[in-house]
Amino acid sequence: MKTLVKNGTIITSTNEFKADILIENEKISMIGNDLSVGCDKVIDAEGKYVLPGGVDNHSHFEALNTDGVTTNAGYDTTWVALKGGTTTIVDFCTNEPGMNLMDSVDYRLNVRSKGKLAPDMAMHACCTDYTEETLDEIPKLVEFGIPTMKLFLAYKPTPLYMDDYKLLKCLKKAGECGMTMMVHAENPDVLDVERNAMAEKGCLAPKYHYMTRPPYGEAEAVSRAIRFADATDCPLCVVHVSCIEAAQVIQEARAKGSLVIGETCPHYLVLDKHKMDDPDFDQACRWVCSPALRDKEDQEYLWKCLNHDWISIVGSDNSSIPLYQKHWGEEDFRAIPNGCPGAGDRLNALWTYGVEKGKITKQKLVDIYATLPAKLNGIFPQKGAIDIGSDGDLVIFDPEYKGTITVESNPTGIEYNVFEGMEQIGRADTVLLRGEVVVENGEYLDKPVFGRFVPGKPYGLAYELKK
Amino acid sequence: MKTLVKNGTIITSTNEFKADILIENEKISMIGNDLSVGCDKVIDAEGKYVLPGGVDNHSHFEALNTDGVTTNAGYDTTWVALKGGTTTIVDFCTNEPGMNLMDSVDYRLNVRSKGKLAPDMAMHACCTDYTEETLDEIPKLVEFGIPTMKLFLAYKPTPLYMDDYKLLKCLKKAGECGMTMMVHAENPDVLDVERNAMAEKGCLAPKYHYMTRPPYGEAEAVSRAIRFADATDCPLCVVHVSCIEAAQVIQEARAKGSLVIGETCPHYLVLDKHKMDDPDFDQACRWVCSPALRDKEDQEYLWKCLNHDWISIVGSDNSSIPLYQKHWGEEDFRAIPNGCPGAGDRLNALWTYGVEKGKITKQKLVDIYATLPAKLNGIFPQKGAIDIGSDGDLVIFDPEYKGTITVESNPTGIEYNVFEGMEQIGRADTVLLRGEVVVENGEYLDKPVFGRFVPGKPYGLAYELKK
Amino acid sequence: MKTLVKNGTIITSTNEFKADILIENEKISMIGNDLSVGCDKVIDAEGKYVLPGGVDNHSHFEALNTDGVTTNAGYDTTWVALKGGTTTIVDFCTNEPGMNLMDSVDYRLNVRSKGKLAPDMAMHACCTDYTEETLDEIPKLVEFGIPTMKLFLAYKPTPLYMDDYKLLKCLKKAGECGMTMMVHAENPDVLDVERNAMAEKGCLAPKYHYMTRPPYGEAEAVSRAIRFADATDCPLCVVHVSCIEAAQVIQEARAKGSLVIGETCPHYLVLDKHKMDDPDFDQACRWVCSPALRDKEDQEYLWKCLNHDWISIVGSDNSSIPLYQKHWGEEDFRAIPNGCPGAGDRLNALWTYGVEKGKITKQKLVDIYATLPAKLNGIFPQKGAIDIGSDGDLVIFDPEYKGTITVESNPTGIEYNVFEGMEQIGRADTVLLRGEVVVENGEYLDKPVFGRFVPGKPYGLAYELKK
Amino acid sequence: MKTLVKNGTIITSTNEFKADILIENEKISMIGNDLSVGCDKVIDAEGKYVLPGGVDNHSHFEALNTDGVTTNAGYDTTWVALKGGTTTIVDFCTNEPGMNLMDSVDYRLNVRSKGKLAPDMAMHACCTDYTEETLDEIPKLVEFGIPTMKLFLAYKPTPLYMDDYKLLKCLKKAGECGMTMMVHAENPDVLDVERNAMAEKGCLAPKYHYMTRPPYGEAEAVSRAIRFADATDCPLCVVHVSCIEAAQVIQEARAKGSLVIGETCPHYLVLDKHKMDDPDFDQACRWVCSPALRDKEDQEYLWKCLNHDWISIVGSDNSSIPLYQKHWGEEDFRAIPNGCPGAGDRLNALWTYGVEKGKITKQKLVDIYATLPAKLNGIFPQKGAIDIGSDGDLVIFDPEYKGTITVESNPTGIEYNVFEGMEQIGRADTVLLRGEVVVENGEYLDKPVFGRFVPGKPYGLAYELKK
Repeated sequence: MKTLVKNGTIITSTNEFKADILIENEKISMIGNDLSVGCDKVIDAEGKYVLPGGVDNHSHFEALNTDGVTTNAGYDTTWVALKGGTTTIVDFCTNEPGMNLMDSVDYRLNVRSKGKLAPDMAMHACCTDYTEETLDEIPKLVEFGIPTMKLFLAYKPTPLYMDDYKLLKCLKKAGECGMTMMVHAENPDVLDVERNAMAEKGCLAPKYHYMTRPPYGEAEAVSRAIRFADATDCPLCVVHVSCIEAAQVIQEARAKGSLVIGETCPHYLVLDKHKMDDPDFDQACRWVCSPALRDKEDQEYLWKCLNHDWISIVGSDNSSIPLYQKHWGEEDFRAIPNGCPGAGDRLNALWTYGVEKGKITKQKLVDIYATLPAKLNGIFPQKGAIDIGSDGDLVIFDPEYKGTITVESNPTGIEYNVFEGMEQIGRADTVLLRGEVVVENGEYLDKPVFGRFVPGKPYGLAYELKK
Repeated sequence: MKTLVKNGTIITSTNEFKADILIENEKISMIGNDLSVGCDKVIDAEGKYVLPGGVDNHSHFEALNTDGVTTNAGYDTTWVALKGGTTTIVDFCTNEPGMNLMDSVDYRLNVRSKGKLAPDMAMHACCTDYTEETLDEIPKLVEFGIPTMKLFLAYKPTPLYMDDYKLLKCLKKAGECGMTMMVHAENPDVLDVERNAMAEKGCLAPKYHYMTRPPYGEAEAVSRAIRFADATDCPLCVVHVSCIEAAQVIQEARAKGSLVIGETCPHYLVLDKHKMDDPDFDQACRWVCSPALRDKEDQEYLWKCLNHDWISIVGSDNSSIPLYQKHWGEEDFRAIPNGCPGAGDRLNALWTYGVEKGKITKQKLVDIYATLPAKLNGIFPQKGAIDIGSDGDLVIFDPEYKGTITVESNPTGIEYNVFEGMEQIGRADTVLLRGEVVVENGEYLDKPVFGRFVPGKPYGLAYELKK
Repeated sequence: MKTLVKNGTIITSTNEFKADILIENEKISMIGNDLSVGCDKVIDAEGKYVLPGGVDNHSHFEALNTDGVTTNAGYDTTWVALKGGTTTIVDFCTNEPGMNLMDSVDYRLNVRSKGKLAPDMAMHACCTDYTEETLDEIPKLVEFGIPTMKLFLAYKPTPLYMDDYKLLKCLKKAGECGMTMMVHAENPDVLDVERNAMAEKGCLAPKYHYMTRPPYGEAEAVSRAIRFADATDCPLCVVHVSCIEAAQVIQEARAKGSLVIGETCPHYLVLDKHKMDDPDFDQACRWVCSPALRDKEDQEYLWKCLNHDWISIVGSDNSSIPLYQKHWGEEDFRAIPNGCPGAGDRLNALWTYGVEKGKITKQKLVDIYATLPAKLNGIFPQKGAIDIGSDGDLVIFDPEYKGTITVESNPTGIEYNVFEGMEQIGRADTVLLRGEVVVENGEYLDKPVFGRFVPGKPYGLAYELKK
Repeated sequence: MKTLVKNGTIITSTNEFKADILIENEKISMIGNDLSVGCDKVIDAEGKYVLPGGVDNHSHFEALNTDGVTTNAGYDTTWVALKGGTTTIVDFCTNEPGMNLMDSVDYRLNVRSKGKLAPDMAMHACCTDYTEETLDEIPKLVEFGIPTMKLFLAYKPTPLYMDDYKLLKCLKKAGECGMTMMVHAENPDVLDVERNAMAEKGCLAPKYHYMTRPPYGEAEAVSRAIRFADATDCPLCVVHVSCIEAAQVIQEARAKGSLVIGETCPHYLVLDKHKMDDPDFDQACRWVCSPALRDKEDQEYLWKCLNHDWISIVGSDNSSIPLYQKHWGEEDFRAIPNGCPGAGDRLNALWTYGVEKGKITKQKLVDIYATLPAKLNGIFPQKGAIDIGSDGDLVIFDPEYKGTITVESNPTGIEYNVFEGMEQIGRADTVLLRGEVVVENGEYLDKPVFGRFVPGKPYGLAYELKK
């Protein structure tokens, strides 16, 4: 099977140049001028950009809530990522009820996602049930191809919550195995103090969600996690950084040599918290996610962070929670399940509000949405690159497209899109996954599903700083 | 004319992969597996690495001293760079006596270097005679393809010295034109205080050179230049950073968002000041350069800086001063012309003491010795990349080579090599310049010279931070 | 009752001058040259310094351990403080078993210390049993004259331990009432990780105490407490700062405007951790305190901190634990009760190892050992000053004294002195408490006890930074 | 001669208490309750505060301009300082034309100020004619009682300007002798670039004065001077800090241990630059001083700096330039002599806009306006203290006074007051200089002049940080 992409302008994390690309047996086998080879398929990319397929460092499909119940859309909706230009998701595998992590990985790969996966998938372990066995599982996960693990520093007193003891033990072990530790960094006590005080006053609408998640609660947890990472010499990735205070902690730590990588998300870059001010609960609840959306100045600062490599990665933190579940919190914002869909809009948002606004270069976009996430997860250069031997994952991007985001045009697997009504410039016109065209004219082709698990290598991106 | 490099392992600033490379009409036209095309020449790179040709951000050939006399080896010795894997030098054009910068550029291109240039050459303007005309020349230089200019903040009270007034005026103008300003950052008064005090005590041997160039004199000038760059919003490149103190100023400034790029040099990374302790003047004088060599801790810190991108570029600061000129300072170290050869040993030093020692990755080496220097000078992706359309400048690097550096094996254009006697691992086995083999089996082929001027585009590397 | 101290050289926190001092009805009523008044008692201080009586910000007498059992010497030994020049102790009142704080204060004042107190005493509340009532007690404590409260951030999972929720609630309330919050800042999980790992390896000797309390565990807790103090706008005092890392957190916070005051202790200034290396358990156990003793470099740094006002106060953290109790940990260092005696050696240590070594001025000594502690606790100028209207608490200090510290010469209320065998220069020759001579020729006169409770005013020292 | 001040409330840098003060033979001899001694004079201070007489760290009387011509009011106007509560000025002695510093000191003491001085006077040397002799003069000045020297880092290319070479040489020498170096920190080239550019555009009104003195020009010079002070281990005082940027440089340096003391002035604390926007030259010119007045945010920040001891001293920088001289710059702001009167309004401004606005405590006021300036200049405790043996310099301050500042009520020695029309709360009702009443009911008594030279001791305030 040979596919030839002709006449496109290739964008990599470092360069922009015109060339044809030949994909043979799922891999890029040739890049050059005027390639003329016998092919099964030829795609004309004249006037378009050709980007490596996106690698989404942060997706939650069929995630379990704290009761072990799945709270958001399943793997049968992962095609929305593909449609949005993401050819590899890095999904989180939490503990299935009563299972250890290795078994949970097996269950997720072979039961939950079986036959449903549209894009390829790498995986983060996510310890939500710390037991005596957990530390021993770390080298096993790494060997299996899962060189990253996330810990929740928030959500006390549920089992998701990892206290400093567990965090430290995991960091120590992880650093020995080449694993990169990831943290959801919010101080649960800070949140509880604010939330309870607000609730006691009878303030229970969705907007109190953001009013009770002050930036210092995020910054504190980031600061603590970095101090522990320094002490244990274990690289760290702080996911979904939302605000100036937290970003500055990372910025200062990196300037002192800490092995820390920051990730932010499209919604923190383009949306602000006042979405939750909507008096209509059915609207306001959609933007309830953690950390909360912040202010316009935070958005500006996060773009600056990306540009200076203070924050290195943009993941979607996709969590498609249907409205009926969001409505569980109708009487009390604390019961609204946290999370926003976004897997399909990551590239759109970065292009429209980043490249088109002059905030980042096209190369930077590729770096933060594909190349660096792939490196962090140890799946580079298989993913995240347009180089010989890399998977034939390509986005043929039409910069001329202009539209308005709706849940119909930009589906999320559920009934709403948090970017609804916003302008979109450019889109993934054609997407190839390992050489196969899966999106054409911006529409998902609904092929027999063939997403695969992509095992990652240890000693990812942050370890390079350790040299 | 077609040349095919087969079976090599390509190293870019981001990746490592096996592929063949076809060069056609001086440009890379195809990269792929098992390329089989009709070719004029096929080179087998099996077991070897293929790197983009080096871009040396900092060379001085046929430089003029403060009296306008040339003090170091001429362009007929630029082949030493090629032999060492550098296919593009970025040379400095100072004012010829009585000439403005544009005329000096013309003179250097069409007289001094005419028919002598072995590698390709881009150019930095270097204002050594600030006149009323200087500011008007800045846009002209940019338009001509010289988007960088260096100013000497040291060497008071010679005409080389640019005081803060001139520095500020140049920064303001440069920032408007997309020029990147470069500075030799040493505070001349700090040096003079120390040097005069030492000389008054009769301390005149070469070792007093390093004893009278305290790190704070360098750090102060770096700090001041960055403050002015911030105030004028003009990107800055601080060349030849030699010590912890100066590096930290850059590190902290970058962490606050300053548009500053740091460059260091191989001799600051691998040599220390005690070379100048040799009681034999003829030996000691060879290592007299500015800033002075520092201590082992400084070397360690500079490697760390490269790894964290606190310093981004390694240039040679090649200045091949023959021994008879060095002996001008036999009675007084202050009369020793400053400078060390090094154009031919940049890649060797980075590989042997960086990659082989585990201090940097191979990708980082490519970044700091080719890709980022090319970006800084606006000559990327013509130079510094292995991508379709880039110049066919390749280094076929043999990692198995082991040797000892001597001026015979690693020539400098003059009678000594400052790395003499040191171990070398790996070498540029074959070098191609625009597809032409110019080095084979590690030897320069002495072809009819065909180095060309490479005009640079404005708004180079540091401007990206400005987004 | 009139007492006249003649011919002494007065040292205050700002000045040094010769003058006589008249004390009338417990208060200083006159300071001047050659005072000649009819007096009950005249003391000749010729050749001696006259200092304000010391205020010890940090003493534990008859403290309760986590089981509510008293673990150290009682108030009948508080005369050792007087003998060492401290005329006011600020003792900690923890919750008596089953009592709230106000009742515990009452019990401590009217039962525990009744008829036993030698020096005057102010008090810190110390919440060791956080209940629903605690926050309501804060304004009551302030009104009663206890404008400070300490929280233990360590000692998880005992009731002493205050998690971030409790810390934040207390800070918010305290900041509204003019209370200064104090913290014992060590991260309990950091300690547990280290301690358990060490114990699992069978490492149970006293020296493992210091090996399992890494500085980063202290620095982390300090950093977190300051961040919360900033967020709640409540002034903070970090007690017993022991190491560079923790001190630097305070130093940097103060430089950014945080309302934080640091306290260190004589043992951190003059002793190092290798005391615990003694193979004789009976010796080694004496120096087990928390935070642990550190290294010589930490000592140097702490002196520097005092000099720059990065740390402002030196308290003794007196905790006189008899040897039989220390021996509880003979099989396991974790069972050794933590604490060192020191109430009697604070002035000696500061003079001998501070003033005499040229590390601090005499004025600085007065500031850190009397004036600033009095201000912190809202008992200035009644205490900590030699001014008209202040209590007649004076130390007549003989700078000519030279001796060696032993538990006989420098008693502690128990059978050992942690400074045993060290040189002492100068001593409190005569001490007056509210005009009464209580120490003469360096010996405690064992008068009928008359120490009194000194109520403090709110809005102490750290609130001044808030202006 | 005995004077008794009864019933006042004494404010010192640390305390507030009621007591009577007896002054005998110029010195304070007794402080106490209800002093009843036979006296020549009794002053009732009931309801009033008694402060130590102010020490003004920064006054220019009969200063010489760059041509050696005196440009501002002479010593016969120094009584305005007394009237405003300042009993000691620290005046600057620049080089008299053709004289070295020691001779200039002699000339200033014995000719210029002879028979005219109202308050006491200490002195700063101010090198405005650096010669071979200068360094040798430093120890002589110290021995004579002048342990401070100011250097102008601005005013290039006049002889006032000290380049880095001279600055470094002076710092090295001064540090060896216990001298504290002071700097007027503005980068002259920064100013010239801005001023010339503005002038070329024909912008010549007074307001262009402030528009052409950007804060970064001040911050740069401060930063450089501190770096040199660090390198030479010589304590530094940065005078007249005017803006956030410069203050932060000092703040950060102090937080790292640099031996630097900052001074600001009343006009930077209470006036903003828009005064110079007045289209009437005769008005606008009055506020032309250097550094220029800044913005309201700078004022707020400077108050905060005082409170945190980031800046330690408030001097007046009194420079009473008559209007006819100000008018020299009618055609070009660059010709307006720089300087504002203020010697008489320092205390008023600090009280009205500091104490009364809740920005500083009364103790802080005493510290920054009397105690610390005295310590810096080595004249403490003779000046700046209310202690036995100190000079009988007292301000009896009426906090009930309310008025409006006019040049009649608050004279300046010339025809205008820069605080004209502003509210004043409180005033120096009675002022005693060495026991002599020189101001009564707020009016200067015009006594036979008896101000004296007060020699200072070396190793002043900033050296204490060096311990």
